[in-house]
Amino acid sequence: MRPQAGAADGAPGETATLADIARAAGVSAPTVSKVLNGRADVAPATRERVEELLREYGYRRRAVQAAPLLDLVFHELESAWAMEVIRGAEQVAHDEGLSLVLSQTAGRMIPGQSWLDGVLARRPTGVLLVLAKLDPAQREQLATRDIPFAVIDPAGDLEAEVPAVGATNWQGGLAATRHLLELGHRRIGVLAGPETMLCSRARVDGYRAGLETAGIRFDPSLVRAGDFHHEAGYACGRELLRLPDRPTAVFAGNDLQALGLYEAARELGLRIPQDLSVVGFDDLPAARWVGPPLTTVRQPLAEMAAAAARIVIDLARGRRPSALRIELATELVERASTAAPRKP
Amino acid sequence: MRPQAGAADGAPGETATLADIARAAGVSAPTVSKVLNGRADVAPATRERVEELLREYGYRRRAVQAAPLLDLVFHELESAWAMEVIRGAEQVAHDEGLSLVLSQTAGRMIPGQSWLDGVLARRPTGVLLVLAKLDPAQREQLATRDIPFAVIDPAGDLEAEVPAVGATNWQGGLAATRHLLELGHRRIGVLAGPETMLCSRARVDGYRAGLETAGIRFDPSLVRAGDFHHEAGYACGRELLRLPDRPTAVFAGNDLQALGLYEAARELGLRIPQDLSVVGFDDLPAARWVGPPLTTVRQPLAEMAAAAARIVIDLARGRRPSALRIELATELVERASTAAPRKP
Repeated sequence: MRPQAGAADGAPGETATLADIARAAGVSAPTVSKVLNGRADVAPATRERVEELLREYGYRRRAVQAAPLLDLVFHELESAWAMEVIRGAEQVAHDEGLSLVLSQTAGRMIPGQSWLDGVLARRPTGVLLVLAKLDPAQREQLATRDIPFAVIDPAGDLEAEVPAVGATNWQGGLAATRHLLELGHRRIGVLAGPETMLCSRARVDGYRAGLETAGIRFDPSLVRAGDFHHEAGYACGRELLRLPDRPTAVFAGNDLQALGLYEAARELGLRIPQDLSVVGFDDLPAARWVGPPLTTVRQPLAEMAAAAARIVIDLARGRRPSALRIELATELVERASTAAPRKP
Repeated sequence: MRPQAGAADGAPGETATLADIARAAGVSAPTVSKVLNGRADVAPATRERVEELLREYGYRRRAVQAAPLLDLVFHELESAWAMEVIRGAEQVAHDEGLSLVLSQTAGRMIPGQSWLDGVLARRPTGVLLVLAKLDPAQREQLATRDIPFAVIDPAGDLEAEVPAVGATNWQGGLAATRHLLELGHRRIGVLAGPETMLCSRARVDGYRAGLETAGIRFDPSLVRAGDFHHEAGYACGRELLRLPDRPTAVFAGNDLQALGLYEAARELGLRIPQDLSVVGFDDLPAARWVGPPLTTVRQPLAEMAAAAARIVIDLARGRRPSALRIELATELVERASTAAPRKP
C-alpha cells in the first residue's frame, strides 16, 4: 500500500528524491520543503510546478515525521450526530496517543485549500473526512506527504482506493419499512435526505424494496426530500400529513427529521403512534428521550468513526488494515413511536 | 499581563534566560529545551529541577513560536451540550486561522500530565478548559511556555488571575423559579447537579432565593442531586414524583435532567404541563423538539466558548482582553412544558 522511503540524503527524515524534485523544478531544496509543508510564501506557479513533479516522481515523505495528531473534518459541525462521530474518533486517537484536530468546511463538501495548507503544515498522522470528499489534486497532495485519509459515512461516490467506513443504509431502510408493513401499514411516507447523498438514496431504495417485495406499489407522491435537519422534517412532514389521503406511517430518513415530524404531528393534533407511526434513522441519544421514545434504525456512528480512525492509523504506521472499505450493520430499535394503524 | 521577552541569545525565538536556566541547572540548553517541549526523554529529577528554575527565574518563552492550534479540553465529551461549546470555539478559532484540538480527560476534573506533555509539545496558541481546572504546577508549566488558558463554565473555585467565562447561573435559577411561582405553583421541586459544581449550587441558590423572596419556605425534601445526565433526571425525578405530596412543578437543573424527568412523568402517567410543570437549563437544540417543547433557561454556551477563545487569543497575541472574568446573561425561554397547576 505504501512505498518504501528511499535513503536519506542529509535532510533527516526526507526521502532521497527531494533533491531530485528541486533539481527538476529548478528551485532550491528548501523551496520544495516549503511546498511540502503547505507554507504560503512560495509563488503559485512554483508551487504548482513542484506539486506536479512530486506527483510525477511519485515522491513520498517518510511517515516517521508525522505529528501525534489526527484530523477530523466535518462539512458542518452541529447536532448530536457529529458528537457521536467525535466520540468514536477521539477514543481511538486517545488510545493511540494522538490528539484530535477538529475542522469544519462551512457546509462545503470538498474542503478548501486553506484547510489543506493547515494539514500539510501540521503533518497529522492521518485525516478523517465526514460526509465530505477530496478532489484529485488534494488526494495527491496528501499522498505525496504520506498522510493517509479515510472517509466516514461517505456521501457520494468514492474512488476505489479511498478507505471508507459506512453503514448498511439500504438494509436499514428495508428493515424500517418491513417493520411498518408487519404492523399493518400500507400507506407509508418517506422523508429522504438530499438527493446528492448516496446514504440517503440507499435508505430510500431500501424502503422501496420493502414495499415492492410486499407487493405494494411505490408511490412517489409519498416521498419528500429534506436536508436531514429538524426544520426540514417539520416542513416536509407537514406536507405529507396534510395530504388528503395522508400516510399512516412515515420513515423519516434520520432522527432529526423524525423529531421535526413529531412537531408537525403535534401541531396538527395527530398522536404518535395512535394516529401516526414514525421510524427514524441514526439512534441519537435524544431518540430515547423524546415523547414517545422513537423507534429508529441504529447506525453505529461512534464505531464507524473508530473503525475509520483505526484504518488511517494502521496505514500511517505501516500496518495493513484488515479492510479498506467497510459497512457496519444497522439495526432496528423498537420503541414507542410505532403501532398498528387504526381501523378505518 | 505578559512579561516582555528578553533579548535573543542565538537560539531563535527563545528568551536570553534559557542559557541561564541551563547553567543554573547544570544541564545543557537542549535539555532545557526538551523540558520546555514536554519531551519524555528527560530524567524525572532533571525535569523537576528545570521546571523549578523556570518558575524561579520567571522564564517566559516568546509567544511567536505558537502553533496555529487552539486546545479545547472537556472532562467528558458527550451530549449536545459539548457540541454547542465546540461550535463556539471552532468558529472563533477558524476566524483567527487556528485549528481546534479536542481532548477529554476521561471524567477527571484536572487533566493528567500526558495531556499536558502533548500540549507542551504541540505549543498551541492557547488552551480552553471546559468545567475543568489545572493544578498550580500545571498552570506554571503553561505560564513558562507562554501558553495562555481560560476556563469555560468554571465548575469550582478559580484563582483570581485565571480567565474564565461563565453564565449567570444564580439569576437563571431565580428566573426559572419566579416563572413557576407566577403561574401559581407553590410546591416546586428541584433537581440539582453535583454538589461540587459551583454552577449547580448557584442555580439552586437562585431557586431558593426565588422561593424565599416570595415568602415560601425552602423545603429540603424537594431537592435531589443528580449528575446532569439524563439517567439522573429520570431516577431523581421518579423519587420526587412518588412523594406522597408530590411537587406540581420541578426546576430540573439542566435540560438533560429535564428530559429524564419527562420520562419519569410519562411512566407514572403524569401529563406535562397539565399534571406537572418542568423548567430546564441550557436550551440545547433538543429542548425545542421534545414533546412538549421545554421551557428552559437559555445559557449561551457557544457564545461563552467564543468569548473564552477570544480572551486566550488576545492574550497570546499581546492584546489586552476587555475583561478576564465574564458571566454572560441567561434568559428564560417559555415554551409548552409549564402551565398553572391544576386546582386541587
